[in-house]
Amino acid sequence: MCQLLGMNCATPTDITFSFRGFSQRAGITSDHSDGFGIAFFEDKACRLFVDNQSAVESPIADLVRNYPIKSRNVIAHIRKATQGKITLENSHPFIRELWGRHWIFAHNGDLHDFNPPLSGRFTPVGNTDSERAFCYLLDQLVEAFGYEEPSLEQIFEVLEKISPQIAEYGTFNYCLSNGKALFSYAITKLHWLVREYPFNHAHLIDLDVEVDFSQVTTPEDRVAVITTEPLTHNENWTAYQPGEMILFQHGQPIKKAITFVERLKREQENPELKRITRADQY
Amino acid sequence: MCQLLGMNCATPTDITFSFRGFSQRAGITSDHSDGFGIAFFEDKACRLFVDNQSAVESPIADLVRNYPIKSRNVIAHIRKATQGKITLENSHPFIRELWGRHWIFAHNGDLHDFNPPLSGRFTPVGNTDSERAFCYLLDQLVEAFGYEEPSLEQIFEVLEKISPQIAEYGTFNYCLSNGKALFSYAITKLHWLVREYPFNHAHLIDLDVEVDFSQVTTPEDRVAVITTEPLTHNENWTAYQPGEMILFQHGQPIKKAITFVERLKREQENPELKRITRADQY
Repeated sequence: MCQLLGMNCATPTDITFSFRGFSQRAGITSDHSDGFGIAFFEDKACRLFVDNQSAVESPIADLVRNYPIKSRNVIAHIRKATQGKITLENSHPFIRELWGRHWIFAHNGDLHDFNPPLSGRFTPVGNTDSERAFCYLLDQLVEAFGYEEPSLEQIFEVLEKISPQIAEYGTFNYCLSNGKALFSYAITKLHWLVREYPFNHAHLIDLDVEVDFSQVTTPEDRVAVITTEPLTHNENWTAYQPGEMILFQHGQPIKKAITFVERLKREQENPELKRITRADQY
Repeated sequence: MCQLLGMNCATPTDITFSFRGFSQRAGITSDHSDGFGIAFFEDKACRLFVDNQSAVESPIADLVRNYPIKSRNVIAHIRKATQGKITLENSHPFIRELWGRHWIFAHNGDLHDFNPPLSGRFTPVGNTDSERAFCYLLDQLVEAFGYEEPSLEQIFEVLEKISPQIAEYGTFNYCLSNGKALFSYAITKLHWLVREYPFNHAHLIDLDVEVDFSQVTTPEDRVAVITTEPLTHNENWTAYQPGEMILFQHGQPIKKAITFVERLKREQENPELKRITRADQY
């Protein structure tokens, strides 16, 4: 499977601390060593680094750990291949352009037999269920709004409708950003927190590293971090509820919804179903 | 202005030798120090590195010089800003997806008052004439072929028709690749050569570095290099004719055409015109 890391900030912030801990899971504290990727927005522009080496060994990951790129929206992904080849074209995050903005998407989970009709407007380059879901989401946004850019709230409403439909096909935890804000959705596992004034110490779980954020921040800073598994010992991480969607902007949640996923209800009523459909997923 | 570097190869090849010389022009042997970018295809996937630091100082360029990424199609660009802000979103090359493939485009030259109608299918993220031209080219390809991928020859025919129309607005030298092949077009300045068996020595112009390609190649290797200004002393670079389009695949030209650009004819007949329209371009 894989793990996700997202960051949404009020002011441009570097992710080196969180990425140092997160990338340890690519072979040291965990075995997510089949490629990694990270995307940084700088205003409307986006830098996307991907590699099919592990985030522990990749010289590109090394650059990211040591070159403090400041960004308001970051999405990173480390992969443990359970199915599908370890190729660059299957490495998350994926990138597309819509409404004169880059969009970045990374997914945690597996979708089974998910082959939705696509218009051709967005077509997967690789052969993952994840990129197919991304193209389908963007297609549905164009279907809803045409080529006029809608508000973040309007985008949220469409994602809130489409995401649980995709989640009928399996596990669908994702981070999605257009550089303005970060949309996140979880069916099984995702956590978030906000770091803000007055800032505290934080100690990584995956590496014996501590930082005193009060020494490296200003009162204007505020950072939301979204991650599959909590990154630090001594901070209050909140777990997403099943089907929860959260929109982050300026380093804080600005909109939340719990979507209704029929499959989750069926699994609650019959736990045996859950065992069967998720056996290959974790 | 800026400079272009393209590479198209029969077998995956690293560009470190050529990029070492080329990137010297970003502040040492020339003053193209306002950002750089380089895109590497690996099959259908693409790695795109951009930075608004110079290719001499950027840690990302340093990574590219030292990490031999093997690729069949590479496009690089170093910028000297004559107009437009030095922002990441205005850094070449630009990326879009069409027909389930990434497309990469870099432009040398200036287009004046070039504001073609765009469908919305591809929209510029930044505000350069270059990205607008790229979006227009892709729009015209969709206009011609819809969402069914045509052959390289069919794509060539559309580019051969559209490119001289865009060149009416100014200087339009470009490299464009979809990972299968590399399309190149020149109005004023572009050079190419093919390195193939039996390989020889090559000595960089911008740096006192020589390589004996016969020591680092096999007879199957073949590499076409496309560049604004020749990179080596002792190789035979061919200059593009005004309006020439060349399609490279498997490390060699497979199709060529000289397009007819009305503006060039007017300038030939009246050299004063050329002086006026190109004064700010070189």
